[in-house]
Amino acid sequence: MKSSLEDFLDQSIRTIPDYPKPGVQFRDITTLLGNARAFRRAIDELVHPYAGLKVDKVAGIEARGFILGGAMAHQLSSGFVPIRKKGKLPHETVRVAYSLEYGVDEMEMHRDAVKPGERVILVDDLIATGGTAEGAVKLLTQMGADIVAACFVIDLPELGGRKKLEALGVQVNTLIAFDGH
Amino acid sequence: MKSSLEDFLDQSIRTIPDYPKPGVQFRDITTLLGNARAFRRAIDELVHPYAGLKVDKVAGIEARGFILGGAMAHQLSSGFVPIRKKGKLPHETVRVAYSLEYGVDEMEMHRDAVKPGERVILVDDLIATGGTAEGAVKLLTQMGADIVAACFVIDLPELGGRKKLEALGVQVNTLIAFDGH
Repeated sequence: MKSSLEDFLDQSIRTIPDYPKPGVQFRDITTLLGNARAFRRAIDELVHPYAGLKVDKVAGIEARGFILGGAMAHQLSSGFVPIRKKGKLPHETVRVAYSLEYGVDEMEMHRDAVKPGERVILVDDLIATGGTAEGAVKLLTQMGADIVAACFVIDLPELGGRKKLEALGVQVNTLIAFDGH
Repeated sequence: MKSSLEDFLDQSIRTIPDYPKPGVQFRDITTLLGNARAFRRAIDELVHPYAGLKVDKVAGIEARGFILGGAMAHQLSSGFVPIRKKGKLPHETVRVAYSLEYGVDEMEMHRDAVKPGERVILVDDLIATGGTAEGAVKLLTQMGADIVAACFVIDLPELGGRKKLEALGVQVNTLIAFDGH
């Protein structure tokens, strides 16, 4: 059974059938972002578990994680760290390969973006198989970050991403779950 | 003469010489974003001119405009609209070509992202020649948006972008200016 929060967010997320390929129900959060009340509530719920905790940085995964992470970092008065596709950052980086549905890609973070021991929250819009988030966790861990939690608006639990992160010892917070993928 | 705000932001922005090509001083705002006090102050200064005004949406230009725009939209309790490179948005879009230093590219916005008469603030990290911002203004205007202002952390006034937007009747707000490019 969905809570009233989940009902509210559910109604603000657009489902696009057979995108980007047949059989996939794409969960489009641009309709949530564009709805002032839904966006405000989603961000407030995302930061809620961390109120009163020390958070040094929010790390957002390109590109939708930037929108959510910028808002969270401002709200928590923390810094923001962009985790980007390779070749986009201008200074010295650390890089990691991560699994996509077909094949692999690489993501990067500035080498000086996080100092050892800094407390970091990771954010993206959605967790599916968790390949992207796992790559981001590896980058942050490599730099000595203390990962407070990873958070996502949408969980697709059947694809196992949450369990993958939890197996790495990362606390996962999500706002709404959808069946299937 | 720079104000104390400009001094503070200046110190938080990293300049990378000869990037992405010889002779260019790249202004890297990731060091500002990662500095909790600088990021907090930059966002608070960006939203300051719009306090008390009706703002329906903040439109952010991919990708650094997403970080700033997400924070601004949350702070203003408005919706957020992503303006993306072509082929990234899942629903029906409007598209416009825009000028880069060499050649052209295309950007898109969801057709239903802005309704006629909605009051929109445009945001990106930096305005140089203004080609990207001009493309975004065209998309928003095509959809009937009422553009309240376009805002940027950094202005490179010698490159003329601010004047280009002002010639289109768009109010421009920036936090800090650098000479050269």
